[in-house]
This record gives sequence, structure tokens and C-alpha cells, in this order.
Amino acid sequence: MQSFELNKTDVLRIKQALEEDDVKLQSLIAEYHASEIAILFESLPQEARERIISLLPAELASEVISEMDAEFHPERLLENLHPERRSEIIEELDYDDATDLISQLPEDQQKEILEELDEEDATNIRSLLKYEEDTAGGLMNTQVIKINENLIKKDALDEIIRQSEEMEEFYTINVVNDANILTGIVSLKDIIKARYSIKIKELIKPDFVYVKAETDQEEVAKLISQYNLTSIPVVDDHMRLLGRITFDDVIDVMQEENTEDILKISGVSEDEELAGNWREAVKSRLPWLILNLGTAFLASSVIRHFDGTIKSLGILTAYMTIIAGMGGNAATQALAVTVRRISLTDLTDAQAYRAVLKEFTVGLINGATNGFIIFLFAVFYDSNPLLGLVIFIAMTGNMIIAGVAGSSIPLVLKRLGIDPAIASSIIITTFTDVCGFLLLLGLATKLLL
Amino acid sequence: MQSFELNKTDVLRIKQALEEDDVKLQSLIAEYHASEIAILFESLPQEARERIISLLPAELASEVISEMDAEFHPERLLENLHPERRSEIIEELDYDDATDLISQLPEDQQKEILEELDEEDATNIRSLLKYEEDTAGGLMNTQVIKINENLIKKDALDEIIRQSEEMEEFYTINVVNDANILTGIVSLKDIIKARYSIKIKELIKPDFVYVKAETDQEEVAKLISQYNLTSIPVVDDHMRLLGRITFDDVIDVMQEENTEDILKISGVSEDEELAGNWREAVKSRLPWLILNLGTAFLASSVIRHFDGTIKSLGILTAYMTIIAGMGGNAATQALAVTVRRISLTDLTDAQAYRAVLKEFTVGLINGATNGFIIFLFAVFYDSNPLLGLVIFIAMTGNMIIAGVAGSSIPLVLKRLGIDPAIASSIIITTFTDVCGFLLLLGLATKLLL
Repeated sequence: MQSFELNKTDVLRIKQALEEDDVKLQSLIAEYHASEIAILFESLPQEARERIISLLPAELASEVISEMDAEFHPERLLENLHPERRSEIIEELDYDDATDLISQLPEDQQKEILEELDEEDATNIRSLLKYEEDTAGGLMNTQVIKINENLIKKDALDEIIRQSEEMEEFYTINVVNDANILTGIVSLKDIIKARYSIKIKELIKPDFVYVKAETDQEEVAKLISQYNLTSIPVVDDHMRLLGRITFDDVIDVMQEENTEDILKISGVSEDEELAGNWREAVKSRLPWLILNLGTAFLASSVIRHFDGTIKSLGILTAYMTIIAGMGGNAATQALAVTVRRISLTDLTDAQAYRAVLKEFTVGLINGATNGFIIFLFAVFYDSNPLLGLVIFIAMTGNMIIAGVAGSSIPLVLKRLGIDPAIASSIIITTFTDVCGFLLLLGLATKLLL
Repeated sequence: MQSFELNKTDVLRIKQALEEDDVKLQSLIAEYHASEIAILFESLPQEARERIISLLPAELASEVISEMDAEFHPERLLENLHPERRSEIIEELDYDDATDLISQLPEDQQKEILEELDEEDATNIRSLLKYEEDTAGGLMNTQVIKINENLIKKDALDEIIRQSEEMEEFYTINVVNDANILTGIVSLKDIIKARYSIKIKELIKPDFVYVKAETDQEEVAKLISQYNLTSIPVVDDHMRLLGRITFDDVIDVMQEENTEDILKISGVSEDEELAGNWREAVKSRLPWLILNLGTAFLASSVIRHFDGTIKSLGILTAYMTIIAGMGGNAATQALAVTVRRISLTDLTDAQAYRAVLKEFTVGLINGATNGFIIFLFAVFYDSNPLLGLVIFIAMTGNMIIAGVAGSSIPLVLKRLGIDPAIASSIIITTFTDVCGFLLLLGLATKLLL
């Protein structure tokens, strides 16, 4: 299996089979990997998804559902299933995935589903439902391999094999003491390599990375990425093991956080679903646009204020938009670099100061260069050197303001505990519009009239 | 170890120790994890980094170097080291990390270093140097666990333990036949659980995911993320095993690709280093700004063209910038959503068509809503209903154009095999500037004069 993409022929064949009988559809679908079926689902209507899910073995059905992207609402596939079948599928899911799905459903349905499940599963899922979705607790799986530190190798191996029966994969083995406190982790490899009578206690890495249940998911992602961990144990305040978070959950979190950053910086609400319908998109973007309309009135009131200047020097209108636009672009550049940098590492005060200073310098040089080009244009095309000088100063000044604002606003927001990506290009470009108009029209009024 | 951040006291203590003798520095540094030292290095000058590296044991030094972010140029730490010490450190590195570092150095230094290394290491690194950096070959590590499919469990385990002596971590075991062709993969867990006399052949998953050495790293990242793999084998055209890529390499690739997306969409060259100096930033951004200056002249030539209209109806200047600016923001929104969506999944033609249609609808609704607000303003503040109507049409039209352009341009670029993020907000906002000016001033000329 080299490529994961369904080609068009596959999709067509399946769509054709959907028109025919269930037996044919069933045998065709069985050829594919769960994640391929999940991708196929993205281009199928809800009825077809439900029909296919009802035909699959419970285990495969649960894998498909857990592979589906949240924005295609996998939880809706559970709604119309027969209760018995639904319980079957949910019991095949990892607890964390089951919890994520169930938490998306309305309260009364949640209750109904939990009552259908067997007691142990229901208890586990109920305890996970109480954690916030974007914390370690909301991300973790409660199925872990856990052995007592006083076991000897032979018994530990038996215990690991017994516990792993019910688990798809495990990466590290958690070691606890008699009080059920997590004392370390150990890899299967290290256990196998050790001599037969060794106590697990002697094999553990006591210097291991763990998180509390309430740790933010972004912090968890940073830890997993920084220490190259396949999984990280989650503990309560007394260091009792609650569960584990695996690297694949964290990859999803990273992609999610990156999507949110890129959307917010572009003035789109972070929870707009990329493949959502137009209603959701309007709901997510219209507030930002109306906010921008308000600030745009501010910029245009600057223009109204200098009405007389523009009347007597009409050529200013043509330059005005260039200076404002260039400032907006320079601000967007500084903003993107700063927001991305903050989201990958935390900056010290000294680093933050140097970052703003750098953007000042960059604004000065880029502004002066572009200002000089536009100065030449004013001199040779409009034959007005003094106008050229005003334009040069306005361009340089606005680009410096753009660099300083584009870098310092997200840095200040971060210090205030506000998401820096909120300093979206929408807000920052209106800011440079206002400054650009003020600089150009103000200078022109003083020097050219 | 719960948090990975160095606090200020730590950094101060180390900076203080740098002023003092090596012994003190050495004992202080030894307290930290390699990745913490790597983060510390970001705020230290090059001399201090070199001094600390020279004090660390070779193994820890190599870990620190491999944990350093590429933008802080870890390869420069190798340049001034004593050849013997340098070889020691390089030999501790995984081959893929060593290759990445060496490939950053000038040709003559590469040659010098390779000659210092022992023959086996040099051969391995030379063979890796021939792969492009952003392909599976450039990303893979050649150290893998590989066993013959005809081994029985007992011998296989011995072989795995023997081969894993030299490896930090391994996640899956690659199985080859007598012709050295990769026939499957198997997990250590499955081997341990099997009965003693079983042949490995009977345990392998024949339906496994692999990549060719020339596969693009973005494709590799998608596979690892989609199939939740800890590692993926890399093969040549004859299915011979070349190496493996692990999930942690892929997490780095994802962050890198995400950074590139966010930068390109904001008109910053993809290779600008986030923490680079102002010279690099000017080099990366100035070309985009000059390109934008050119297109801004185009927009301003539209304004010049309608000089007469503006002279006789000066109030248009104030509205002009609002309509252009709002179009730019709406286009940035559509662009961000589309670029991000494309980078996470491949869209079919039908999905692409629906995405553009959705943006048309969103543009219509958001445009009409904002157009209506500004219409009211023109009616009640400027007492000019006909002007209000012109503004309403121009706003709605420009927002529709913004949505369609913001979504279709990246989709078309993707189909043409060009990176869709190139359709940066810089290019797309000038486009909506031109369209906004044309619509407003053209309509005003026809209807209001």
C-alpha cells in the first residue's frame, strides 16, 4: 500500500455499488482501509455514510468513525443507529475517541447512549466527559499498560501481554508503586533485554515527562514534539496515573492549532470548519467584516478631514491608496512572522524587544526603498519633486509603523494572556490605513498647500 | 519533569557560570536535558554555545546539536571543533541528523569532515547526502531493525536485541525475505505474544504502508498522520529496505510546512527564518513589496483614469478606500480557508467547484450586508441615496469577486502543480483593489455624473 489516496475509479465504483445491493457494496468496501473509507465519506451524502456504516463489521465501523475528521461530524453517524449496534461500535472505540464523539451530541442523547453501554465503559466515558476538550484530560486515553515496580521481569512480561490483549498499540509501559503512584516509565525493549530476575524498579527512567489532566493541549503538543515522545502519561495532583496521550492525537492537535492560527490571522473565526457550508462561513466571517467596516469608516473619516487638501491636489488620491496598501502588506508580513514565532516558542522579554527592533529596521529599509521608487515616479511622471518628498516620508513612516505594530501588538497580546493571532491582518491593516492617510495628507497639507 | 521551559533563574545561573570557570559551568549544564540546553542556546552568542558544546560529553553534545532548531544553525557548532572531537560527536548522531547538518556546510568542509569519519559512517552519510532534503530519502534514518521472515520467534528476538543495541528507539520491526526484499512489518508486542516456535512470516502484516525514497516529505507526513504510524519504511524501486522515517521527524516537517504556508500566504518568502536578523527579513520581504508596489500602481492608474469623476464628486475618495479594503479582507478570508483546506486534503473537481460556489454565496451575503450598512450611511450622513446605491452595488460586487478569486486562484494553482499559498494576500488584495476602484468609479461615472 503505497498511496493513501482513493483514485477516481475507486470512488466511482463505490458510488455505483451504492446504487446496487448491499452484498456487492459490502464486499467492495471491505477492500479498503478504515482511513480510506473515512476520506471517501467526505464526498458522500449522510444517507450513504449511514448505509455503509451499517454494513461494516463493528470493529471496522468504529475505526472509520474515529478516523473521520471532526468537521464531517462523525457523531451524527451514531444518531440513527439501532441502540444495540451503536453500543457495539462504541465499545470498539478507544475511550478518548468515544468520549469525543459523545460529547458532540445533545445532552439527552448522551444520556441515552451511556445508559445503553455496559457499566465499565459508561463509567470510563463519564469520567472523561468531565475534562475540558482542549486539555490533556480531554485528549487522553484511559487504556494504559501499568505494572507494579516490584514485579520481576518474567511476571512483568506476562502482565504486559495480558494487559495488551485489549489494546491496539502501546508504546511505553507505566510503572507504579504499591500506593499506585506513577514512579517511572520503561520500554518493552529494555524489559526484554534485561536479565530474567531483574526487578522493574531497576529498569525505569525516573526522569520522565508527564502532564497533569488540566494541562492545555498546546503544551502537551510542545512536550511530545520537543522530547520526541510516542506517548506521555497523564496524572492527577497526587501523581496517580489517569491515562496516556499518544503522538497521533498530538499530530491532530497540531494541525488543528495551525488551522486556527492561519484562520485567525486572516480574520476568520477559529472554529470555522474548512469544509463547512456557506451559512457557517457567513456566521464566522461577517462579524469580522463588520468590525472592519467600522474601522474603515475611521480611516475614511481621516480622508474626509483632509477634504480641502485633496480638492486642491487631486493627485494625492492616487498615491494615498498605494501608501496605505503597502503599509497593510508590510504589517501583514511582520504579523505573520511574529505570530508564527510566538506559537512555536516562548520569547523572553529581551527576545521580544529585539524582534520589534528588527521589524523597525526592516520597515525603515523596505519603506525607504519603496519610497524612493515612488519618489522617482512623482518626480518624473508627475513632475512634482516636493510631492515626491512628501510621499517618500509618508511611505517610509508608514512602513516603520507597520513593522512595529505588526510585531509588538501580538507580543503584547501574548503577555496579556490573549491569543496573539487575534491581532489579525484585518485589524492591523486598518491601523496602517489610518496612519498612511494621516501621514500623507497631513504632510501634504503642511508642505504642499 | 513536568515543564520543559527553562525559567529565568536557570538562564541567569548559566549565564553567570559562563563568566566563571569551566568546571562550574560543566556541572551546572549537566543538570539539564539536551532539548533544554538547545533552547538555552537560542539566547546565547555563538562563542558561548561553542564553549558549552566543548565541555559536554560527546553523546550529550550530539543530542543538543540534533535538538537545535535549524534556524539557529547547529552546523556552525561543528566548524571550529577539533577534528577528533568533531568525529566523536558526529558518530553519536543518527545518520539522518548527521547528514542534515553536514549538508548545510560548504562543500570543502563536507569533504574534510567525511574524511575524518570512520569508513562505515562516511559511506552511510555519503549515500544519504545524495537525496533531496525534502524527500523521504532526505528524511530517513538508515538505522533500522531488519530480520529475515524465515527466523523463528526465539532467534528473531535475539536478533532484534542484538540490532537494537546501537539504537535509541525502535517502533516496528522490518521483515525481509532471502532476496532482501521487504515483505512486511511486525511489532515487538506481536512477536512476544506469539508461541516460541512460530515463524516471523506468520506474524507479519503484509498490508503495510511504505514510501519510496523520492516521495515528497509532505506526502510522507500525510501518510504518518493518516495511518497513525510511529514509523514508515523507505524502499527503493525494487522494494529493498533503505531506512525508516519516524513520527518525530514528521512532526518537525509538519511544523515547517505550516510555517511556510502562513508565511507565503502573508507575502513572506517561505525560507525566511522566524528568528533571523533584519538583513534576512529585508531580503525575504522586499521583493514581494516591490511586486506589490507595481500592482499598486496599476490600482492607482484606475484612480487616475477616473480623475474627472473624482474631481466632480470628491466624496467618492472616502468610500473608495472602504470598498477596496473590505474586498481585500474578504479575499484574505477566502484565501486562508481555501489554502489551509488544500494543504490538509486533496479536493476532487466537484469539491473544488462547490468550494468556489460557496465563496460566491458568502461574498454575496457578506457584501450585501456590509453594502447595506454603508448605503444607509450615504443616505443619512451624505444625503445621497443614488450614491448609496452605487456604493451598495460596488461593495457587493467586489466582495463576490473577492470570494471567487480568493478560492479559485489557489485551487487553479494547485491543479497546475504550483504551490497554492503563492496566491498570497498581497497579490489577491491588489486584485480586489483594482476591481473595487473600477466598480465604484465606473458605476459612479455612468450613474452619478
